[in-house]
Amino acid sequence: MIKVAVVGATGYTGGELLRLLRVHPKVTVQSVTSGRFVGKLLTDRQPFLKGHYDLKLEALDPDKISKKVDFIFVALSHTDAMLPVFKFLAHGKKVVDLSADYRIRSSASYEKWYGSPHLYPSLLKKRVYGLSEVYRKQIASASLVANPGCYPTGALLPMVPFLESGLIDPAREMIIDAKSGVSGAGQSPSDQTHFPTVNEALTPYKIGRHRHLPEIIQEISTIGKIKAQVLFTPYLLPVNRGILSTIYLPLKKKMTKRQIDAVLKPYEKEAFIRLVPESPSLSHVRGTNYCDIGSFASSSGRTAILISAIDNLGKGAAGQAIQNMNIMMNWDEGTGLSAPGLYP
Amino acid sequence: MIKVAVVGATGYTGGELLRLLRVHPKVTVQSVTSGRFVGKLLTDRQPFLKGHYDLKLEALDPDKISKKVDFIFVALSHTDAMLPVFKFLAHGKKVVDLSADYRIRSSASYEKWYGSPHLYPSLLKKRVYGLSEVYRKQIASASLVANPGCYPTGALLPMVPFLESGLIDPAREMIIDAKSGVSGAGQSPSDQTHFPTVNEALTPYKIGRHRHLPEIIQEISTIGKIKAQVLFTPYLLPVNRGILSTIYLPLKKKMTKRQIDAVLKPYEKEAFIRLVPESPSLSHVRGTNYCDIGSFASSSGRTAILISAIDNLGKGAAGQAIQNMNIMMNWDEGTGLSAPGLYP
Amino acid sequence: MIKVAVVGATGYTGGELLRLLRVHPKVTVQSVTSGRFVGKLLTDRQPFLKGHYDLKLEALDPDKISKKVDFIFVALSHTDAMLPVFKFLAHGKKVVDLSADYRIRSSASYEKWYGSPHLYPSLLKKRVYGLSEVYRKQIASASLVANPGCYPTGALLPMVPFLESGLIDPAREMIIDAKSGVSGAGQSPSDQTHFPTVNEALTPYKIGRHRHLPEIIQEISTIGKIKAQVLFTPYLLPVNRGILSTIYLPLKKKMTKRQIDAVLKPYEKEAFIRLVPESPSLSHVRGTNYCDIGSFASSSGRTAILISAIDNLGKGAAGQAIQNMNIMMNWDEGTGLSAPGLYP
Amino acid sequence: MIKVAVVGATGYTGGELLRLLRVHPKVTVQSVTSGRFVGKLLTDRQPFLKGHYDLKLEALDPDKISKKVDFIFVALSHTDAMLPVFKFLAHGKKVVDLSADYRIRSSASYEKWYGSPHLYPSLLKKRVYGLSEVYRKQIASASLVANPGCYPTGALLPMVPFLESGLIDPAREMIIDAKSGVSGAGQSPSDQTHFPTVNEALTPYKIGRHRHLPEIIQEISTIGKIKAQVLFTPYLLPVNRGILSTIYLPLKKKMTKRQIDAVLKPYEKEAFIRLVPESPSLSHVRGTNYCDIGSFASSSGRTAILISAIDNLGKGAAGQAIQNMNIMMNWDEGTGLSAPGLYP
Repeated sequence: MIKVAVVGATGYTGGELLRLLRVHPKVTVQSVTSGRFVGKLLTDRQPFLKGHYDLKLEALDPDKISKKVDFIFVALSHTDAMLPVFKFLAHGKKVVDLSADYRIRSSASYEKWYGSPHLYPSLLKKRVYGLSEVYRKQIASASLVANPGCYPTGALLPMVPFLESGLIDPAREMIIDAKSGVSGAGQSPSDQTHFPTVNEALTPYKIGRHRHLPEIIQEISTIGKIKAQVLFTPYLLPVNRGILSTIYLPLKKKMTKRQIDAVLKPYEKEAFIRLVPESPSLSHVRGTNYCDIGSFASSSGRTAILISAIDNLGKGAAGQAIQNMNIMMNWDEGTGLSAPGLYP
Repeated sequence: MIKVAVVGATGYTGGELLRLLRVHPKVTVQSVTSGRFVGKLLTDRQPFLKGHYDLKLEALDPDKISKKVDFIFVALSHTDAMLPVFKFLAHGKKVVDLSADYRIRSSASYEKWYGSPHLYPSLLKKRVYGLSEVYRKQIASASLVANPGCYPTGALLPMVPFLESGLIDPAREMIIDAKSGVSGAGQSPSDQTHFPTVNEALTPYKIGRHRHLPEIIQEISTIGKIKAQVLFTPYLLPVNRGILSTIYLPLKKKMTKRQIDAVLKPYEKEAFIRLVPESPSLSHVRGTNYCDIGSFASSSGRTAILISAIDNLGKGAAGQAIQNMNIMMNWDEGTGLSAPGLYP
Repeated sequence: MIKVAVVGATGYTGGELLRLLRVHPKVTVQSVTSGRFVGKLLTDRQPFLKGHYDLKLEALDPDKISKKVDFIFVALSHTDAMLPVFKFLAHGKKVVDLSADYRIRSSASYEKWYGSPHLYPSLLKKRVYGLSEVYRKQIASASLVANPGCYPTGALLPMVPFLESGLIDPAREMIIDAKSGVSGAGQSPSDQTHFPTVNEALTPYKIGRHRHLPEIIQEISTIGKIKAQVLFTPYLLPVNRGILSTIYLPLKKKMTKRQIDAVLKPYEKEAFIRLVPESPSLSHVRGTNYCDIGSFASSSGRTAILISAIDNLGKGAAGQAIQNMNIMMNWDEGTGLSAPGLYP
Repeated sequence: MIKVAVVGATGYTGGELLRLLRVHPKVTVQSVTSGRFVGKLLTDRQPFLKGHYDLKLEALDPDKISKKVDFIFVALSHTDAMLPVFKFLAHGKKVVDLSADYRIRSSASYEKWYGSPHLYPSLLKKRVYGLSEVYRKQIASASLVANPGCYPTGALLPMVPFLESGLIDPAREMIIDAKSGVSGAGQSPSDQTHFPTVNEALTPYKIGRHRHLPEIIQEISTIGKIKAQVLFTPYLLPVNRGILSTIYLPLKKKMTKRQIDAVLKPYEKEAFIRLVPESPSLSHVRGTNYCDIGSFASSSGRTAILISAIDNLGKGAAGQAIQNMNIMMNWDEGTGLSAPGLYP
């Protein structure tokens, strides 16, 4: 039984962490923080948790929190997480950072995409990128895990076996056409997330310039040792949760559906990846840590069409964060993540 | 052919007015105003109107606008409309005010509910309440029509024949349980209208203290000459458009479904009221000026259950405003309002 | 650890039972049945459960199933459940029947509303109506629990304390205006549940003649010892899960909001009822066994306005069924039901 | 003023035709047919049209109908339209067929994709494919126009200028990732269109094997004189109306965004194509005959990313059908199609 803190407890990701930690058998949440609602009951801001937590929201004081807990989940906005993560580590704590602040290895690239210089470039060398299925060995011994973005998780997992097998043709562009539920945009209202704007629509945005693009490219080059050309088209989808990513993967040589499936086959032993016979469905991963993957071959055989479904708050954020904690703590990877999802 | 202005052209109601005026055969829109986007093209703020209007957004200058147009639709927020309406009238123009500023006849009640003293109480005596089917004679000779609120329109129309026939029992409470699409909350994003808040939910709000309550009570007492006790429960419904109002009407004497229908029968000659055999549907009034009404008797016969469906932006706002203009101009009431709605 | 069967495992309610039983610490699911898909893997029909169950769907053979399990959940359609329930009981098994077949105590009334004579009227005398918070003592010693309908659960729970305290005025009609998510209509497609029919709409149906009405009236008269007049207006709401019920309760004497809250206060000790300061929200009960209740007084004080939110598949079906099993087995009532809901 | 018939008047496309024809100044609808509801009022099956039509539904008798009308819209299912279209033509009538029966020029290909031999292959040589902006000259003198499928319309229009300019690289696969509202699946309920299946999801289907694929390929080869390799991924989107198509177009030589826009520039003079600065939105084309197009260049410049938004029932069906009638009758192309869309 360890004690944990959720830093940034009033957002969607913080709420999902608390939802999942509530049934984690080896963890007690001791501290929850908020910027604007210090002193209020957690359940005043997260009423769905009423009956589950009696905690009050604290100010974010890394020194004080470090005295109370062993492990910290940081669910703050980018740039806000940089400093507290550093301090928690200085106190010898283990941290999973769900913000973007430690995902990009290059501090120059971070500054370019996030508009702010990185204060702790040395930490960027030590942190491990928390794509659990790929980096679990490194995660096991990490103090700081940078939890992947939701789009990168959905985009990378299906292509990893192809990257590792050197099957992707870097001369042709790879396309990621990814549709996200609105909780991915966070809890702050905006014109873009106003109900009549999103409802009865499907809204492409930041085509070719979304902040998750450099993260995706970084991992493609790290895992696949190729310099990939990636077209990334994200959309706001009128649903609460879930990312459905369709990935058009240019292949070096022609492949059949059967051959494509053979490449994915090692995933059968993964607890949180399910290979599905046809297309995956957001409805089947809602509330879970699963990444469901369906596969198709183009008629010429030169392109693999991979479709993944994740819950952006689950495998795309809080679920994977807990999976990473389990790895870091040397627990079974699925501890506390065994509940089926909500259907319909 | 008359020239009109739409004051407050960038909101949902302004957009709906412009959509409908575009196909009105006797009207040209000459002026559109905006508080924040002066100088921009109207279609920059209302892209759905691209191809239909070339106008630029002007500042709200009643003197200047009065020189250009004969008739003004004011689609501003409450308290913002008071002064410009006064000025347009001073210039001898005809005005339909879609804000709440001239709906409440009592300036004391206005101040109580809208938190601001009324600057032109004398105008409150001259203005006509624009419930077209009830006040069309007065509207015909009015210079200022206060267009009804969306909830009052949906709530009042079904009960008007019962009020006029003296069938309602004022000793028992009347219940209005009314569910509104989110466009009724306007175009400004808020926590309440954030997509993940509204979606997959149904949110009651301001129970017994919604600003449309005094308006409803005023008209019940004016039309029915009774002091009614009204329970008004509004909800935010996860749809873009439409208000479905269920009205439980306490009857003085027992009535059958057949007798209830007989009371409603005069509505058969109304162009914009459709009596439906079962329940009405928001889908059948979308984009229209219709008020569809279904009726039921409680098994004891002591309560009439009336259900109305309107489009909150149509009969609940812009549609009725144009119907009122038609009456004020002595044109056929349905001029420009003859297009069927959008289904599905 | 007991062995259970889920009879009717391929519908929404069956799926929800299996979702919840998966994390129940004292139960193993040994048998799942289906009418049409015998021999298929459960997860072929409920793909969201993939990774959680390896069971094959069996034919419904009560004799055979009774040899394998101790406890049976019957999630069949009305009239289909009557016979198998009888057989399971004849084998000495305990049963929670989620169908309507044993809810109505009067076999004449059952026949009238469900169009089929009741084959086992003697069983109707022994079965216990499974509104857990009301009948837990009787449930504890029952062999057959008739799990309440979703609408009756949401409608009755808020009014029970008023019924028990004799506060309701039977001379005036009580109104239940209840809006249900579409999963409540089951898994069979129909014109009524076709996406473009339900979406962007709110559809009242079977006003005053819904089959849950006699069930509600039965319990009002049993619990409150009054002959109530109930107006029941159900709606199809464009969401997947949840029932929001607004109940207008006529009071014998005037009450303030404070007095109303005092009547509800005993619910504070109930694990699955949460009293909320304002209106409850479907979003806060999704996937849970909670019934959230908000309360208001009419301005005259003569009517209590109670609003309840439940998940129709949770407290309205599978959740309450498991709560009832816990009571029947003399386990802690919340066993296996402690996970927070999914938000947003 | 001509007289027209709508054959197949009770489906979504029939309803949309009748909605639009109601405000068409040169047309009177004289005859509406139905397979199952002969003798009923049209408005019994299309209640949203109440107040607009008094017609009764007739049996489909081409001889009889040909005596009453000059022009016929056929809105039947594929294979059902083949014979009546032939008969109407034999009577010397003009026909726009909205089914798939005359879209595919090759009768062999028709048989392969639609599972039925084509009875009138000679007609296939005479019919004109009704993509208005491309074939308006041929449409002007046609007796039979095969109205394009909804997906092909949204997919082809953006790429036409690139096809005509010979800019597409046929050696690389072109990708069409197209998301459709559920009305595109028609009015018959099914598991796939059941509300809880579609809602809170996004469902890819028939990847690489949708019946609109051969239609798209036929036109690419006709217009562009290339043998294209097309990956076509359709999805069911949880909205009522609209198709958003993202097209990844492989370019022969590198192009900038500016150069791409120059290729599209001729569309500026098209009444029903709007080039938009960023991404188009389904909300801005709802209920219209517009095809809105946004354009992007990949960072390498080797791929044009074109996004189109249409209303599947408008430009994707009934709107384009009326545009085609206007061309066939030598009227202004936009006659009766000038109303703005519904927003929000």
